[in-house]
Amino acid sequence: MGEAGLLERVAERVPALGGDELGPGDDTAVLGAYPGSKTLVTTDLLVEGLDFDLRYTSGADLGWKSLVVNVSDVCAMAGVAHDAVVSVGLRGDLDLAFFDALLDGLLEATESCRVRLVGGDISGSDEVLVSVTVLGSCDRPVTRSGARPGDLICVTGALGGSAGALKSLQQGEDVDPDLLTRLLRPTPRIQEGPILGDAGATAMIDISDGFGIDLKRMLEASGMGCTVDPGAIPIDPGISSFEDAAALALGGGEDFELLVTLPAERYEAASRAVLGVGGDLTKVGEVTRGEMMVGDRPLEGSWLGWEHLRNR
Amino acid sequence: MGEAGLLERVAERVPALGGDELGPGDDTAVLGAYPGSKTLVTTDLLVEGLDFDLRYTSGADLGWKSLVVNVSDVCAMAGVAHDAVVSVGLRGDLDLAFFDALLDGLLEATESCRVRLVGGDISGSDEVLVSVTVLGSCDRPVTRSGARPGDLICVTGALGGSAGALKSLQQGEDVDPDLLTRLLRPTPRIQEGPILGDAGATAMIDISDGFGIDLKRMLEASGMGCTVDPGAIPIDPGISSFEDAAALALGGGEDFELLVTLPAERYEAASRAVLGVGGDLTKVGEVTRGEMMVGDRPLEGSWLGWEHLRNR
Repeated sequence: MGEAGLLERVAERVPALGGDELGPGDDTAVLGAYPGSKTLVTTDLLVEGLDFDLRYTSGADLGWKSLVVNVSDVCAMAGVAHDAVVSVGLRGDLDLAFFDALLDGLLEATESCRVRLVGGDISGSDEVLVSVTVLGSCDRPVTRSGARPGDLICVTGALGGSAGALKSLQQGEDVDPDLLTRLLRPTPRIQEGPILGDAGATAMIDISDGFGIDLKRMLEASGMGCTVDPGAIPIDPGISSFEDAAALALGGGEDFELLVTLPAERYEAASRAVLGVGGDLTKVGEVTRGEMMVGDRPLEGSWLGWEHLRNR
Repeated sequence: MGEAGLLERVAERVPALGGDELGPGDDTAVLGAYPGSKTLVTTDLLVEGLDFDLRYTSGADLGWKSLVVNVSDVCAMAGVAHDAVVSVGLRGDLDLAFFDALLDGLLEATESCRVRLVGGDISGSDEVLVSVTVLGSCDRPVTRSGARPGDLICVTGALGGSAGALKSLQQGEDVDPDLLTRLLRPTPRIQEGPILGDAGATAMIDISDGFGIDLKRMLEASGMGCTVDPGAIPIDPGISSFEDAAALALGGGEDFELLVTLPAERYEAASRAVLGVGGDLTKVGEVTRGEMMVGDRPLEGSWLGWEHLRNR
């Protein structure tokens, strides 16, 4: 089944947009106006062997994750994701069941994130790859650069679950299903992102590479330092029995939680609003004009976790 | 030089957007409102060995072409392209000069097409790949489905040059530089697209896979047939001495000219408007309610050119 056949298979399962909007099938998708004055665009390329391992990741998991990592970026701007285009490169030895599973996971994620699949491309390739671009919008994007001295540093949810699950898999251990979900089916914070924007967030980033490295990026963009209490960092209950739980939470990555700075006086209301949608917001430190400090150690070395693996 | 180093290299060369817009460097790009009531989105994934051959295509040519094939899709909706995100997968054995050349070609194309590079991703991969998403806008998109009986079928520019150049290269022959440009540095019809929309185009598609197959797609989407005069199809002067010039023009593909249907009474004005920007518009046939005919033969078989190669 060539590209045309696969595209038809997609077309059968993607709901038409209706009205004067157009999804896949013409030269471009045609989209009406988004709410808010700003359009947000983000893209990620996932490559087999580097970004995922098909021994641990099913086609459906891959479809899910490739979408949500982009939706998470939109959340981290306090935006709402609306539409996605998805290009897929497939190895010749894969069967149709793999493609269908990938499409299943992708469409599950679009439904869960209330995003429409409006276009894409399919090609052959030596390794499986998925390239996703997500469009979103908002009125007041929260960048990485707005943190101010005295702002509280807060994080949604709990950290380290994804890295813990991956480590267990790589060591051939059984993994608790809830923990595995953190790795294979991460949940982007689609409600928390806009809520934190409305609550007065001054800077925000999603934790994709790790708490330490992403905190550093946000503070560097803001030209600020910090004092972080390492004991305050919320650790995923699924890894609480791991010896290196704290290191996984600080350096593990792929949590897709939101790391946010807020004026101190906005914290209580923000926390209540996040609780109101079933989430959690934990205060872990404060923005300063000084160095970046975690406890009494500078934010460097092992705090920065797996970044060296990405900079291959 | 890892991903972070390459991204910095890009950041140094991509102009900042200014105002309250944001290019690469945060979780997403932030874009202001586009002119027109509709946003257009299109994406293409180009994979080494299938979509390009680095024996014939330099890094700079690849950068150029990966952008303009997407811009061409926006032109084919009568739209104006505004912004692009570009993801690149690089083989480990390539040097920095290749990456820089790719970036050169990409930025040349963005300048030529008046498009901004607002985001992207870089990864490793077993073959070189480029995934581009282009955003554009317009007020009245011209889809493939609006052709009506009696409309004239017209095409911009001349056809077959790109396929002729590729054939010559593959046969180890010298290729005229102008002809090579048609293959390696195609020009999207950024002025002609909106002009034809304003001139009353009823349907439009860009010729990427070939005149025959793309005409068939447009007429199928419109539920129409045609009579096309094969002698009227404009052949690229660079291939006029080729024995199979007519077949290359009909079936060759990658011309990135616009194939358009117009009410007969709009043709003269449309043609003048296209001439006014240095282009050409040639009448090649008429839309009918009958079969799709080229001369006295149905539009099938060899008229459809290289489609079978793409449906691998």
